[in-house]
Amino acid sequence: MATLVAFQSSPKDDAEALQKAFKGWGTDEKTVIAILGHRSVHQRQQIRKAYEELYQEDIIKRLESELSGDIEKAVYRWMLEPTDRDAVLANVAIKSGGKGYNVIVEIATVLSPEEVLAVRRAYHNRYKRSLEEDVAAHTTGDLRQLLVGLVSSFRYGGDEINARLAKTEADILHESIKQKKGNNEEAIRILTTRSKTQLVATFNRYRDDHGISITKKSLDNASDDFHKALHTAIRCINDHQKYYEKVLCNALKRVGSDEDGLTRVVVTRAEKDLKEIKELYYKRNSVHLEDAVAKELSGDYKKFILTLLGKQD
Amino acid sequence: MATLVAFQSSPKDDAEALQKAFKGWGTDEKTVIAILGHRSVHQRQQIRKAYEELYQEDIIKRLESELSGDIEKAVYRWMLEPTDRDAVLANVAIKSGGKGYNVIVEIATVLSPEEVLAVRRAYHNRYKRSLEEDVAAHTTGDLRQLLVGLVSSFRYGGDEINARLAKTEADILHESIKQKKGNNEEAIRILTTRSKTQLVATFNRYRDDHGISITKKSLDNASDDFHKALHTAIRCINDHQKYYEKVLCNALKRVGSDEDGLTRVVVTRAEKDLKEIKELYYKRNSVHLEDAVAKELSGDYKKFILTLLGKQD
Repeated sequence: MATLVAFQSSPKDDAEALQKAFKGWGTDEKTVIAILGHRSVHQRQQIRKAYEELYQEDIIKRLESELSGDIEKAVYRWMLEPTDRDAVLANVAIKSGGKGYNVIVEIATVLSPEEVLAVRRAYHNRYKRSLEEDVAAHTTGDLRQLLVGLVSSFRYGGDEINARLAKTEADILHESIKQKKGNNEEAIRILTTRSKTQLVATFNRYRDDHGISITKKSLDNASDDFHKALHTAIRCINDHQKYYEKVLCNALKRVGSDEDGLTRVVVTRAEKDLKEIKELYYKRNSVHLEDAVAKELSGDYKKFILTLLGKQD
Repeated sequence: MATLVAFQSSPKDDAEALQKAFKGWGTDEKTVIAILGHRSVHQRQQIRKAYEELYQEDIIKRLESELSGDIEKAVYRWMLEPTDRDAVLANVAIKSGGKGYNVIVEIATVLSPEEVLAVRRAYHNRYKRSLEEDVAAHTTGDLRQLLVGLVSSFRYGGDEINARLAKTEADILHESIKQKKGNNEEAIRILTTRSKTQLVATFNRYRDDHGISITKKSLDNASDDFHKALHTAIRCINDHQKYYEKVLCNALKRVGSDEDGLTRVVVTRAEKDLKEIKELYYKRNSVHLEDAVAKELSGDYKKFILTLLGKQD
């Protein structure tokens, strides 16, 4: 469930109020947060349109010049239409390499097959190249095979499970993961082409047959970019809410290390399942996510994140 | 341009006439050909629907039991909705291996990026698995990377050309193709991810810089399945009409060797660009395609193919 608390409003009134907030000496961030932090994705697109009509200016560009630092990034991402946002996140990730690969894996594995297609279409529109084309051009070897396979895959979305296949492929994954320098071709094939339902059955079978969860086992070898991406793919397919909880947890433990991760999870999940992720966070840390955010973050960025988390003023 | 000559008709009248042709001792193939060989893709779908409503039976199943041999296959393929037909063709090709790989390459490279997506969707619906999943499970190594890459790709469809990139990648392709046992990773990346417009620019640059066309050069090494598929991909991207002309030419030269190829080209292109392919055929062989078909084929199969080629009785 969503954490976002959206209020009724008129796009035109919102656009005018925002324009007023931009005027004069400095920006009235409080108003920006009070409005945009309480509007649904549809409302935000309407505001963008109304603002364009009223002032012949893209409000996203204006916000970028009015804000700065973490809040600028967060508001910018919040304002983009979700598939377009994912296209931007993927592009930034491709260019940054290393840690960025996780973001590519997230987009390719957490979204539904149809949603991934929509992101690929948005990527065409924005960059005049294909997502897989850019991923392939920035990587090599097994990492390339894995990432290109993940972003290019149009997985079957049905619920059928082939139990025999789950057993065979659990064994293949086990062999591949236990050898650090093994042949990864088959593991890549399985993770990039099977349906998510089938993969979860395979992961369950892995745990039953090998006495350890594949997410734990694949962590052991996660020392290079390929194995890190493999580990992330397995976690995101297996249980993306658990994965996102961990991203938030790590970002809040070492503030200054991963504001991008924190912003990404909150912005992309606030209208989807951030409530469940929050509950998982509390279960694992015995601290409410809002309290950790309130303690570790500061300023307008903190206020904005708390607003998206559904904290009432 | 199309070669199909479609006549106006009512789906209900057609369904009734076909039902009459099926009745009694033997099938009246002449009527089947006279009707179905003169109906557009939309009309055929309407006939299928009308027949289902009138007789609670799928006319495609009925046609399969009424006809046999090459004509059965040809009419069956002709009656399927085009994306569904391509899904069937791909599935048959995956299971047959060897020569079948060409069919997979054709579908992935001749169709537009959006059309390939539609085929992948049809494949989900029909087989409850993804196209790339089945291709990957039936192949290994470089051949797998190439075929999975081709069917999974959602190429950018725009007309932009990067001339610098065309030069660099023409050189990479040249290096890769001239070494029989070379590293094919980069050649696969280029052919599976770049836009078709960019690839044609790269192929032109190849010819200018290396004094030979890449289609000719890639033929030299086309001795194993991987290199054959690579050669087909290059030809289909470079000029698919020329490629199809060659398929027809080979099939007619050695009748009995590739009726599937002949049927496939005629059925899939009759409503698209079979006219241009026919013209190319005449230019290269100084014989009209219809005359070659009339000479080499026989029976109802011949009649049906000639009808789709636009030959008036």
